[in-house]
Amino acid sequence: MSGNSFGTLFKITTWGESHGEALGVVIDGCPPGIELSNENIQKDLDQRRPGQGKGSSPRKERDRVEILSGIFEGKTTGTPISLMIRNEDVDSSPYEEWREVFRPGQADFTYLAKYGIRDYRGGGRASARETAGRVAAGAVAKRILEREKVEITGYTVEIGGIRAERVDYSEIQRNALRCPDRNAAMAMEKKIEEVKLQGDSLGGVVEVLVRGCPPGLGEPVFDKLEADLTKGLMSIGAIRGVEIGAGFRVARMLGSQCNDPIGP
Amino acid sequence: MSGNSFGTLFKITTWGESHGEALGVVIDGCPPGIELSNENIQKDLDQRRPGQGKGSSPRKERDRVEILSGIFEGKTTGTPISLMIRNEDVDSSPYEEWREVFRPGQADFTYLAKYGIRDYRGGGRASARETAGRVAAGAVAKRILEREKVEITGYTVEIGGIRAERVDYSEIQRNALRCPDRNAAMAMEKKIEEVKLQGDSLGGVVEVLVRGCPPGLGEPVFDKLEADLTKGLMSIGAIRGVEIGAGFRVARMLGSQCNDPIGP
Amino acid sequence: MSGNSFGTLFKITTWGESHGEALGVVIDGCPPGIELSNENIQKDLDQRRPGQGKGSSPRKERDRVEILSGIFEGKTTGTPISLMIRNEDVDSSPYEEWREVFRPGQADFTYLAKYGIRDYRGGGRASARETAGRVAAGAVAKRILEREKVEITGYTVEIGGIRAERVDYSEIQRNALRCPDRNAAMAMEKKIEEVKLQGDSLGGVVEVLVRGCPPGLGEPVFDKLEADLTKGLMSIGAIRGVEIGAGFRVARMLGSQCNDPIGP
Amino acid sequence: MSGNSFGTLFKITTWGESHGEALGVVIDGCPPGIELSNENIQKDLDQRRPGQGKGSSPRKERDRVEILSGIFEGKTTGTPISLMIRNEDVDSSPYEEWREVFRPGQADFTYLAKYGIRDYRGGGRASARETAGRVAAGAVAKRILEREKVEITGYTVEIGGIRAERVDYSEIQRNALRCPDRNAAMAMEKKIEEVKLQGDSLGGVVEVLVRGCPPGLGEPVFDKLEADLTKGLMSIGAIRGVEIGAGFRVARMLGSQCNDPIGP
Repeated sequence: MSGNSFGTLFKITTWGESHGEALGVVIDGCPPGIELSNENIQKDLDQRRPGQGKGSSPRKERDRVEILSGIFEGKTTGTPISLMIRNEDVDSSPYEEWREVFRPGQADFTYLAKYGIRDYRGGGRASARETAGRVAAGAVAKRILEREKVEITGYTVEIGGIRAERVDYSEIQRNALRCPDRNAAMAMEKKIEEVKLQGDSLGGVVEVLVRGCPPGLGEPVFDKLEADLTKGLMSIGAIRGVEIGAGFRVARMLGSQCNDPIGP
Repeated sequence: MSGNSFGTLFKITTWGESHGEALGVVIDGCPPGIELSNENIQKDLDQRRPGQGKGSSPRKERDRVEILSGIFEGKTTGTPISLMIRNEDVDSSPYEEWREVFRPGQADFTYLAKYGIRDYRGGGRASARETAGRVAAGAVAKRILEREKVEITGYTVEIGGIRAERVDYSEIQRNALRCPDRNAAMAMEKKIEEVKLQGDSLGGVVEVLVRGCPPGLGEPVFDKLEADLTKGLMSIGAIRGVEIGAGFRVARMLGSQCNDPIGP
Repeated sequence: MSGNSFGTLFKITTWGESHGEALGVVIDGCPPGIELSNENIQKDLDQRRPGQGKGSSPRKERDRVEILSGIFEGKTTGTPISLMIRNEDVDSSPYEEWREVFRPGQADFTYLAKYGIRDYRGGGRASARETAGRVAAGAVAKRILEREKVEITGYTVEIGGIRAERVDYSEIQRNALRCPDRNAAMAMEKKIEEVKLQGDSLGGVVEVLVRGCPPGLGEPVFDKLEADLTKGLMSIGAIRGVEIGAGFRVARMLGSQCNDPIGP
Repeated sequence: MSGNSFGTLFKITTWGESHGEALGVVIDGCPPGIELSNENIQKDLDQRRPGQGKGSSPRKERDRVEILSGIFEGKTTGTPISLMIRNEDVDSSPYEEWREVFRPGQADFTYLAKYGIRDYRGGGRASARETAGRVAAGAVAKRILEREKVEITGYTVEIGGIRAERVDYSEIQRNALRCPDRNAAMAMEKKIEEVKLQGDSLGGVVEVLVRGCPPGLGEPVFDKLEADLTKGLMSIGAIRGVEIGAGFRVARMLGSQCNDPIGP
């Protein structure tokens, strides 16, 4: 109940602090018979890893995943899949200076208010590094989605006010910002460097496209698919808004413009 | 697990179809010793009830709440509070014409895909009428929040592209659209009437202000307060986007503009 | 989380006090397309109703169930099924004398310790009357089990030290104690009358036989079928022990006597 | 939902197979500020470890626990505590002969029926080795119970029909069977050796005594303390029956003998 689990049938529980021994995730409810290897997960962890492009945190770490349970002869067995990533760059001495002060925009004050204890080393559990567990679990989920022919693509559509003007899916994997518009990507990288020199940071907008989603997924009232997806997104550190479909533009549409026509 | 419950410590389970016998909610986990009367709940149900202003559904119904359990000598006892509202206007004959066709913008097609059965009478469980159970439970929750000195105010800031230019809280209760700007409210009502004559409908934006929320509420990772609030909002029928705080405007801010300063 | 729900896929939430307005249950997760009528439920409620035989509480009440939601054209729709039973015999004046004292063997003291409030009228939520909600939900569950060819039979095997010597299933419905041995049933009734005259009561043992249960039901570790069944049984008021299969006799068997042989 | 979690406020999720890489547990909801060291947990794991007395499995393994998260400067922080035990004796070659046949009294057939896949190496997830995760989590729970002055003692009262005639708590830690009666312990050990020579095994009865449990613990209806404890016990491999308090003896008592008197 302490909020470290997500999902019901495919339930994940993440654990681990930014500067602790390790971090990871336990997946409970993965169907049996899915082929799963370290590489399937490592690939996504490598993409998550900071220190790749100019737009991200300078932390350097290999983030090697280890599958500790749930796999037999290369396939899932239906038992819990435990995934672990050892922390390597755990020198918390740079954070010693934060022992007595709070950093703005961090969760440290709230943690202290709630738990009466504070892990000042790199954000502890509130660090963006917590998402490594989510990404690892997501890589397993993707194996199931592949089987069901559901495709998910995420990409950056805006950073620092610079918007992608076109969506070229083949471009996404070619630049470190995963922006589908090459020119926009270059302008974004340039702006990031400028702002970084001023000791500041930028915001942005990300778009996620799901193809092949079967009708009837999700539950009718509180656990609507949109509601669950939105909760998942909103639980990621810096996210402040989520739109589904036409999103806030619906507010200025007429009903007749907004309704999906029903075809045969 | 079928998605009709929300919350953990204060858990609500709503039930009932638009044109069934009744609808209601069971609240499990309300603390004992809270004074609670029918009037506390009826007041909010009366505000939810359609047919009041020009902007809403024409259904006419008294929506009388009945407290069936959980109260003894005017106070909650800690046991489940069961609230029921009998449906009175359950003439489903106007819906007979929809027996063989799907209405666009309704959930009927998805229900049929998921359950293999369809309740064509007024949207069944997907009707906006389902929110009566939420409102009744919310009225109980408000009694607890009052005790904790947490205040919640909701109001309309935009309809059909017309925005409230000022926020005068005292105005909210004075117009049927609950808009905090009197002039905007009048313009909105006028636009709604126009569009209704054309057999169409409008979208809008609602703002909710919470005052007195204690630090540390919510859980750190997946069950962040923002994530749970967003899920709750996104699970309401027509909502397509949710922002918290500065919302999407954060995307165009610098980190230095966006961080909350920490004061003494 | 306050313990009024049971189950996950087929989840029931019971509510209502012994001497409140009504009591009932919300079933969330009943599959769609199951034929269900008031009679299906009423039949089981009538069997539960006290005041039938000499062995039970003297309360007289019809216990009429009302289906408030979840049914359309005689079939379940997959939405929550809300069932309500109005309390009729709610004269709580006989309990006025208990306002200032605790009855031994009742939950009143524990309620007061936990909630700081006490509903002295007939046990409130801890009354055996709470099982009416369980029985109603069980009647719905049985409709699903029938479809799956799973049969469940419960009967009394011992009361006040008198044991049924034979199990004649056809006898179970013929006596008020639901004992499968006619002679034992008569001896039990006689003993109950004797003890009642002394202002005392007796204990007993009930056996439940499940036939046609498919292999693989239940989850492997904590949510084993046996564990969930045992929890359900142990949550009923006066139950102090549960055995599965050979039960405590296993403690005196050799492994070779106790293992089920595996046949083709 | 796959049954590998137990508890709500203090929720544990166990993972790992008998012959996989490792096994462990994630504890979500441990209060912050509890002093916790490896030794606290190792002590209990050492007691669980087989190969100590004559009564247990011959597996030899050190079962070293590693605390991977949730602790900072020797105290719990309120974040998930991840505990891992590497499997060392993972030579599964002795199990090769079981690849094509089922062992009676094991869960392999049920696993195959449920998941369509079978991990024949030492019982996989159904192995008694799974309890290592429970014991580790229990050691953490005990730290909280100590603070609350709740004491729990478990001991063996019967094996192979030999019963402990006296309960000398100081004796429990002195013999490998944890029997509180020295003479009975010796007779039990002798009987175990005899039966083992015949290639057979024995059953037994264990008693658990809780002292200092505060009134009001547990939830009133389905999640009664007794119901939850019973479920936990019944979810352990070979357990076939659970009694609380006077247990089945209540069936032969009069109400007047059985009720606890209420004192000042």
